[in-house]
Amino acid sequence: MVGYTHIFEKAIRSVREEGRYRVFTEIEYKVGQAPYAYSKKLDRRIIVFCSNDYLGMSQHPVVIDTTVEVTKRCGVGAGGTRNISGTSSYIVELEAELANLHDKEAGLVFTSGYVANQATLTALAKIMPDCVIFSDELNHASIIQGIRESRLEKQIFLHNDLNHLESLLSQYPLEKPKLIVFESAYSMLGDVTPIGAVCDLAKKYQALTYIDEVHSVGLYGKGGAGMAEKLGVMDKIDIIQGTLAKAYGVIGGYITAKSVIVDAIRSLASGFIFTTALPPSIAAAATASIRHLRNNEEVRNKHQEAVKKVKNGFKNIGVNFLDHGTHIIPVMVNDPFLVRKIAEDLLNDHGIYVQHINFPTVPRGKERLRVIPSPLHTDQMIKRLISGFDSVFKKNKISQYDLLING
Amino acid sequence: MVGYTHIFEKAIRSVREEGRYRVFTEIEYKVGQAPYAYSKKLDRRIIVFCSNDYLGMSQHPVVIDTTVEVTKRCGVGAGGTRNISGTSSYIVELEAELANLHDKEAGLVFTSGYVANQATLTALAKIMPDCVIFSDELNHASIIQGIRESRLEKQIFLHNDLNHLESLLSQYPLEKPKLIVFESAYSMLGDVTPIGAVCDLAKKYQALTYIDEVHSVGLYGKGGAGMAEKLGVMDKIDIIQGTLAKAYGVIGGYITAKSVIVDAIRSLASGFIFTTALPPSIAAAATASIRHLRNNEEVRNKHQEAVKKVKNGFKNIGVNFLDHGTHIIPVMVNDPFLVRKIAEDLLNDHGIYVQHINFPTVPRGKERLRVIPSPLHTDQMIKRLISGFDSVFKKNKISQYDLLING
Repeated sequence: MVGYTHIFEKAIRSVREEGRYRVFTEIEYKVGQAPYAYSKKLDRRIIVFCSNDYLGMSQHPVVIDTTVEVTKRCGVGAGGTRNISGTSSYIVELEAELANLHDKEAGLVFTSGYVANQATLTALAKIMPDCVIFSDELNHASIIQGIRESRLEKQIFLHNDLNHLESLLSQYPLEKPKLIVFESAYSMLGDVTPIGAVCDLAKKYQALTYIDEVHSVGLYGKGGAGMAEKLGVMDKIDIIQGTLAKAYGVIGGYITAKSVIVDAIRSLASGFIFTTALPPSIAAAATASIRHLRNNEEVRNKHQEAVKKVKNGFKNIGVNFLDHGTHIIPVMVNDPFLVRKIAEDLLNDHGIYVQHINFPTVPRGKERLRVIPSPLHTDQMIKRLISGFDSVFKKNKISQYDLLING
Repeated sequence: MVGYTHIFEKAIRSVREEGRYRVFTEIEYKVGQAPYAYSKKLDRRIIVFCSNDYLGMSQHPVVIDTTVEVTKRCGVGAGGTRNISGTSSYIVELEAELANLHDKEAGLVFTSGYVANQATLTALAKIMPDCVIFSDELNHASIIQGIRESRLEKQIFLHNDLNHLESLLSQYPLEKPKLIVFESAYSMLGDVTPIGAVCDLAKKYQALTYIDEVHSVGLYGKGGAGMAEKLGVMDKIDIIQGTLAKAYGVIGGYITAKSVIVDAIRSLASGFIFTTALPPSIAAAATASIRHLRNNEEVRNKHQEAVKKVKNGFKNIGVNFLDHGTHIIPVMVNDPFLVRKIAEDLLNDHGIYVQHINFPTVPRGKERLRVIPSPLHTDQMIKRLISGFDSVFKKNKISQYDLLING
């Protein structure tokens, strides 16, 4: 370590100076009590308003009982990669369920949504080395990482700007392989992509389409297959990527597509081939969760009602937020230090946990609070959230006017 | 998909033509019966001799009971990234346990060993952009991927060749940041790295050291901390990387190091920051497994005894294998089609599951069977393995002489 310590210290110092040094909030859930959680540091119960366990499925009896049952029956670890020793019947069943959910021929499960994006995009480059990737400028870090790793020629289009996308697509001959990569609902904005229109462009310019539905699966569409299902355009997408770790309440990621695509990715994706498979119990719990949500529009409606109540509450006290009609409610603060102060005050003074979002999750100067209601939040809890915001904004002498000026 | 189908078909065809198209073997374990597993395809019980659940901990009551207990108490999914909503007390406790195990200041948990390598190496490049990486030519795919992504200057040294490593190190000025990346026991060879000698070179040329101990943690050393512990050189390594998915029987990966290193990686590694945390129950089970194995040299001794019995059995029937004194027993076949045929015959005729290992897990022409005994394998099972090999080699008219000629 001679001489190296100062290099690492310098790296941390620069993170601190940018106001983006992260202090994790340690919490513990208790089944039956979520969205309450226990904060060890504060030694008190807090209300979590920033979990991506959007529907509270991580706490649902269907998910818990399945995990417990299969753990007792099969043990925990899968014991190896899918090829060497880790293909359990449960993971095979999960992949069939996912294919069926998205009305595709096949599914492939990865250890996370991050890995699903990264490994698939890297593998696509091996399959189509002369492909050009067209990527939305706000795509998730895992997509950026996958594209970076793929080393394919890339064109970044302005966020959801179809004119810009078309102007880029039209620069290439029709026969040149192309891939448009985008998300259905952007995690930090909550806006919805005109998926059908993107697919129409893809058809016109003979491009493949790859959609990241991680913030939509389970939450939208009649069977909870996501935004593409809701908009009736699921069949127009070539590769649908999703997660088991958010609305489905478990862990893991996946893609679904035609068999020929899935089989090629399965055969060539390093991040799939060389990693231990998900535990059978986790795969089984994911399948149970998906099936439960396919037949449960009620919980999706309840989710949207909670979202509406929070939005109305904010409007009543004059807190501006980005409203694109989804469940994600970003309150823009646009200052790395102030956003942290607000979150700390909410937590310490009011027992409300809303994580502040800093760079690199959002661009510098675009810091925000990301408020996430779930069907588990009662009216009482929502009232506490709103009054907490009101009080903290007053304490810090913030009017939404200031925030907008900063923005 | 117009025009694309044939591109994907071509990719699969070329995988097939190289004899490396993978057909996963679907199995189901039943607690209390491992290393027996049920094969759906064969509709019979088989004996697994290729699991990286080296000590059978995935089936151990300590691991199962902890998983069940914490699942019932806290639910399943963590609900978000560590920063946004996913830092459970159980993951904090696990990181402290890992740091303690390796006698380091801090630990950091990732969703897999693959991601631990990839994300850490990529982050190190952000911290030390002028660093040169010295990497063993046989390092795991995840390390290669991490180095590739890091885009740092790299030097590949011949496998465990200290003279070559030194000749490369000595080409750079002392003050140039350097990182030596290597494994403690190579998964497909089973050989042991002279860790102390590598560290001495690192000291001489002022390089940092990064060791991948995934095939050693839990298995070697007084407390099961791995090969570096066994060789008494743990304190000489700067970053120790390991897995929770093999000997510890769960899922996930980690690094341990000085706090300043871990804090910098935590702050900058994309594959850590942007991914949902491990479920609390998995973190708790990992901690329980590590603690159990720290105080249980007996299971490590029993493991080595089973390994010895298999090696002696092979010697008795004249089957050659690579013997480097570890638990990994590679039987070299060096032909992508023959190796598959042997594995199929072992499975179909004898109910013995030994996965054949093809490219890209091993180099083309270096295909092998990787036989992995565990403390759960009885003498009777080992006898069945040996007689199965004997019979399959005779059926296919293979003498070990042929294999060596091919090799």
